Amino acid sequence: MTTSPSGAKFPFPSVNALTAPLVERLVADAAALRLSVTTENGARMVDAGANVRGSIEAGRRIAEICLGGLGTVSIAPSGPIASWPYSVIVHAADPVIACLGSQYAGWSLADETGDSGFFALGSGPGRAVAVVEDLYGELGYRDSATQTALVLEAAGGPPASVIAKVAEATGLAPEQLTFIYAPTQSLAGSTQVVARVLEVALHKAHTVGFDLHRIVDGIGSAPLSPQHPDFIQAMGRTNDAIIYGGRVQLFVEADDADAQQLAEQVPSSNSADHGAPFADIFSRVNGDFYKIDGALFSPAEVIVTSVTTGKSFRGGKLMPELVEASFR
Amino acid sequence: MTTSPSGAKFPFPSVNALTAPLVERLVADAAALRLSVTTENGARMVDAGANVRGSIEAGRRIAEICLGGLGTVSIAPSGPIASWPYSVIVHAADPVIACLGSQYAGWSLADETGDSGFFALGSGPGRAVAVVEDLYGELGYRDSATQTALVLEAAGGPPASVIAKVAEATGLAPEQLTFIYAPTQSLAGSTQVVARVLEVALHKAHTVGFDLHRIVDGIGSAPLSPQHPDFIQAMGRTNDAIIYGGRVQLFVEADDADAQQLAEQVPSSNSADHGAPFADIFSRVNGDFYKIDGALFSPAEVIVTSVTTGKSFRGGKLMPELVEASFR
Amino acid sequence: MTTSPSGAKFPFPSVNALTAPLVERLVADAAALRLSVTTENGARMVDAGANVRGSIEAGRRIAEICLGGLGTVSIAPSGPIASWPYSVIVHAADPVIACLGSQYAGWSLADETGDSGFFALGSGPGRAVAVVEDLYGELGYRDSATQTALVLEAAGGPPASVIAKVAEATGLAPEQLTFIYAPTQSLAGSTQVVARVLEVALHKAHTVGFDLHRIVDGIGSAPLSPQHPDFIQAMGRTNDAIIYGGRVQLFVEADDADAQQLAEQVPSSNSADHGAPFADIFSRVNGDFYKIDGALFSPAEVIVTSVTTGKSFRGGKLMPELVEASFR
Repeated sequence: MTTSPSGAKFPFPSVNALTAPLVERLVADAAALRLSVTTENGARMVDAGANVRGSIEAGRRIAEICLGGLGTVSIAPSGPIASWPYSVIVHAADPVIACLGSQYAGWSLADETGDSGFFALGSGPGRAVAVVEDLYGELGYRDSATQTALVLEAAGGPPASVIAKVAEATGLAPEQLTFIYAPTQSLAGSTQVVARVLEVALHKAHTVGFDLHRIVDGIGSAPLSPQHPDFIQAMGRTNDAIIYGGRVQLFVEADDADAQQLAEQVPSSNSADHGAPFADIFSRVNGDFYKIDGALFSPAEVIVTSVTTGKSFRGGKLMPELVEASFR
Repeated sequence: MTTSPSGAKFPFPSVNALTAPLVERLVADAAALRLSVTTENGARMVDAGANVRGSIEAGRRIAEICLGGLGTVSIAPSGPIASWPYSVIVHAADPVIACLGSQYAGWSLADETGDSGFFALGSGPGRAVAVVEDLYGELGYRDSATQTALVLEAAGGPPASVIAKVAEATGLAPEQLTFIYAPTQSLAGSTQVVARVLEVALHKAHTVGFDLHRIVDGIGSAPLSPQHPDFIQAMGRTNDAIIYGGRVQLFVEADDADAQQLAEQVPSSNSADHGAPFADIFSRVNGDFYKIDGALFSPAEVIVTSVTTGKSFRGGKLMPELVEASFR
Repeated sequence: MTTSPSGAKFPFPSVNALTAPLVERLVADAAALRLSVTTENGARMVDAGANVRGSIEAGRRIAEICLGGLGTVSIAPSGPIASWPYSVIVHAADPVIACLGSQYAGWSLADETGDSGFFALGSGPGRAVAVVEDLYGELGYRDSATQTALVLEAAGGPPASVIAKVAEATGLAPEQLTFIYAPTQSLAGSTQVVARVLEVALHKAHTVGFDLHRIVDGIGSAPLSPQHPDFIQAMGRTNDAIIYGGRVQLFVEADDADAQQLAEQVPSSNSADHGAPFADIFSRVNGDFYKIDGALFSPAEVIVTSVTTGKSFRGGKLMPELVEASFR
């Protein structure tokens, strides 16, 4: 049963019920989207870019699966970065549930018992069934399902130990699980990461202490970053697309002071690490991801519209020259 | 039976047959879209923004219902107003039937027998079943249905007397009627109003005497206006989005003189009231809506392409500074 | 059976299986899209703009049928040509199969035995069943179907002799064939031609000898050209939309030298005929199509991203003033 926070005026949607048909359609269209679908250790594996080509369209659809069936992701022919015109646009009917309750890559999935060295962060509707993350307590959201899916930004599918961990946490059998994976370097992988432009804004809002239940709607866009075969460079570009080229509008229930503060706090520009291509920052910290200021992971520009007062506030700004330096 | 004007080479589409599945899907997705669905006095009521949050996505879908299932409404990440990048784009397979035969808010629904003070203008496919407006005579269009829907820009659902009026005019029972309502101030309400950018151009064309049967296609876009909790300000912004930020291309069967005249007549700039934010104009006339020049209700910029001669003509221009003044 | 080239890691999609539901939906929505559907000599004929009005939306859907159900075509409210904001954007999951295996108008269909003078170039999924073109040998692709469709840029449906020719080549009965036709001058015709912006880039890549199997993804956009009643002017505008206003990004498996060379070779600017409106070029060669340099038929601007090296290369540039001269 899908439960909603106390005090909610209407029931929360089930991200699993909404995504189940999208997952089946992805699998049915595997040939067109250039995916492979196999069964490993009982679970269904959809390779969207590791040993197959995949496609930008596969990434677009995977992003909609990540969003729990609550969001729309499309490719637009123009955007604010003149020389990289193709953009990803994301909007979601219920952005907090869509982005944080489903899309956020918040479930740490490491191979703890085996020796595969596998590590990935789980994203998608399976998280809302497992509810192993503290975030779900704050969201007041949990979902149930008889089949579920997780999306992994990874170069391979999970080993048996990770499948078992997911099965246990969700109370489902491996046969009821679908893992969709694509590395950051791939067409699908880079596309689904850039489609996180709205999610990172919501996560940043959460980090700075803004009450998520006061965020009522949101739209985001960012340039589609060109693929790079090197993982560090690929990760750099997808992050730069958002950090220096991403733009988000949030609609919140807040007074002017809170809305203005949010507009100042959310953009990437309020991070000490802001100002260099992400791959350079990553090198500077010798690849220790956790030394990067978490405040960097957010869109370049944010508009916060208070639906309570009618005023809009702005923070950050697009940095086209940094996008250029990263993508070239 | 759906009837078409004499002389038409092919049957007119049924806006009710086309919208019925869209209405059912809206209701099925109520939790995701944050709508409430109830039954009042026998009729189905969909609250999309009065006592619920609703969403921009709900507004987008309601706009497609208004368009009689003949049009597509989407959110784009860029537009001509630099600081308000998110736009609504509307195009319709059969714009005259879509916009005037269905979307136009032309059916005056007042509580004449009760004491509720309820008043709203009915929009959507139910109008084409009731055909109480003179406009239908000119369109030569009427539709029939065993169930129908009306969309109301209103802060509440209609009272029993209005339901009865609609039932009588359409020849349907209350159980066969769906009323979808959202106030102008809401996410869904403002979105579905801005999505009228193409419709107001067609209505203005009608007002200036252009033969509607010569309009063969159309596309429109306008910036998504930020919500405002005050009705006057909210109404001001949705109107300004169109009047100062809206752009429409009409495709017509006309000689150059007629096409050029239409391009000159349709834009909002040919109204004496043009040049101030709509909320200011409304104050200036002390809230008497009917003192506002009707010619103001049209897009800022119009391109008229004559498919007869191949020439295009332009009228009006975008006024980004007035959009800024209104939205800020 | 759909067969794929030897060495392919996964099966090719069936463009016929993917388009069959799109064709049926086009026919079901004939009234809304203003199409006529008849049976001639046993085959189903869909007139989308010859003796009916059709619509831009019909052209958009026909373009998706041309793309073998592998691509998405949408109308965007902005683009790089400021005064012609409405653009067509095309992306395809498997662009080589979508564009060359289906969309390319490569099947010469002349009335060889009758006296109708009928001539058209067949486009769409029926080509992949007939496989009469050498191109299919290079693609290593063929499809099978129990019903198929062809799209014709033509002012009328094919005569009995051409239907018989198609039936024979596809091994199907006339009753299993759907012909969708619209002249270049029509709303649907011009839209579906402009939606070839990605296809012409792939065809040019093929012409200059680039291995098609190394093209992994692609996106294109071009301004929607205004209709013109004169065939030459209409053909001129649809071509100019692509040649001077089209922009494509190709994603290829190639080293930097090959990717750079492709970016230099694909744009229309490397043709000796580049620089004048297409209709003028056509007049200059006295209407002898085959005297026009084939290298002209390609987008104005091309970005080639090597997914092998991560570098992007650019060639050509948009010529807004030539688009203006053509469309005005």
